[in-house]
Amino acid sequence: MKRKMTIVKIGGTLLESEPSLVEFCEAFTALEGDKILIHGGGQRASQLSLKLGQSPKMVGGRRITDTAALEVALMVYAGWANKTLVSRLQAMGCPALGLSGADADILRAVKRPVAEVDFGWVGDIECVHADRLSGFLGLGLVPVLCALTHDGKGQMLNTNADTIASEVAVSLSPETDCTLMYCFDKPGVLTDIRDEDSLLATLDKKTCDKMRLDGTIATGMLPKLHNGFQALQAGVNRVLVGSPSMLIQGHSTYTELEL
Amino acid sequence: MKRKMTIVKIGGTLLESEPSLVEFCEAFTALEGDKILIHGGGQRASQLSLKLGQSPKMVGGRRITDTAALEVALMVYAGWANKTLVSRLQAMGCPALGLSGADADILRAVKRPVAEVDFGWVGDIECVHADRLSGFLGLGLVPVLCALTHDGKGQMLNTNADTIASEVAVSLSPETDCTLMYCFDKPGVLTDIRDEDSLLATLDKKTCDKMRLDGTIATGMLPKLHNGFQALQAGVNRVLVGSPSMLIQGHSTYTELEL
Repeated sequence: MKRKMTIVKIGGTLLESEPSLVEFCEAFTALEGDKILIHGGGQRASQLSLKLGQSPKMVGGRRITDTAALEVALMVYAGWANKTLVSRLQAMGCPALGLSGADADILRAVKRPVAEVDFGWVGDIECVHADRLSGFLGLGLVPVLCALTHDGKGQMLNTNADTIASEVAVSLSPETDCTLMYCFDKPGVLTDIRDEDSLLATLDKKTCDKMRLDGTIATGMLPKLHNGFQALQAGVNRVLVGSPSMLIQGHSTYTELEL
Repeated sequence: MKRKMTIVKIGGTLLESEPSLVEFCEAFTALEGDKILIHGGGQRASQLSLKLGQSPKMVGGRRITDTAALEVALMVYAGWANKTLVSRLQAMGCPALGLSGADADILRAVKRPVAEVDFGWVGDIECVHADRLSGFLGLGLVPVLCALTHDGKGQMLNTNADTIASEVAVSLSPETDCTLMYCFDKPGVLTDIRDEDSLLATLDKKTCDKMRLDGTIATGMLPKLHNGFQALQAGVNRVLVGSPSMLIQGHSTYTELEL
């Protein structure tokens, strides 16, 4: 039997609320088997940029990571968010090890090629060093990864945390019984965003495509679902989307993706 | 024969100059045997605090780490400085792993007790988990430690990088042939700060105490020398103080401390 592995992705917003942070860290610490946490930086990066008098660079509605924005991402994701999570998890007995993609060369990426838009210092993942992650797990540690990668030539890059979670899960799935959990502020995929009772217990790719076309699924959910289905197709055993309470055994408030 | 270990401490100022950063990273990468890098954050933390409109809190000429200053330290030391160093070292083939003291519980500290002055979120080291550092070295990695510790109860703490370097060297000295190098912007201990030819090749504790009393040694050097002699007394094989060029074999522009 393959060993159990859980990959949990959270947004950075959770870090801004003390009760949510404590509740999440307790539930994550209690998870059995090997586990990896992947986090974003939430609103804190935009807030810091604003405080520093930097205006967000947008092209065609898409955010651009210029040099100033990358420095803010390094500070907020790898500094404040990562060390806040690591120290809180350590306090609960979870042997957390904070990492960016540059550390131990865990996540090697390439700067996104310039087509219509130059996204700046944004990285598309080329390689996950799963052996290094396994090495840390073998030392009894719990990797906590922030949403930063590097190009192997000395340049840090900004990479979407949902994508990192999916790629990390895929890289570990041949050796493990791998579950990928996307945590956010809803109980899962809702057919009516104003009604939590409209939660779907399962969602298959075909239905998802149909709901995307008829506008039932909120646009903000689409990248998460896209990454989730990609992970399933690439061999990850289970992909769940829901609120952090799905980490607590017995809670079934999530949507499970199906091919 | 014990295995060779080199602990190098640098200030954060080195990160602000591209030629110095490249030169240092090349020399550090070329060092043979196991090695660990420890770094401060330089002027960047004070600069960021100023930009954010925070004024440095001082009591009796000593800097206080309030909550705002700690957040800046997290961002600058563990975020910007640590990941800049790690990505640059990785680019040169040095398998760097960035760490704060909270990561893998490497450096457990206690908030400095309030006597005459409450220094705020400043930590005095209680325990170095040398077994964890050895675990990383055993995976072929090179730990890069920033000047932050944690109290094991969820609180990050600011700790002097010179002290961290000394404590880490002491913790590893029973198992290794350990050299501790303090790099700064002078070639070593000078008897005349305006004259680089006044460099001392060696400095023993007694002479140092004498020079401290008659004011020959600049006050800024004293904590570094204090930590260096403590490390020697606690079993570290060699302690060198000088410019980063001392990492390059054949360069003897440093002062070696002697008991």
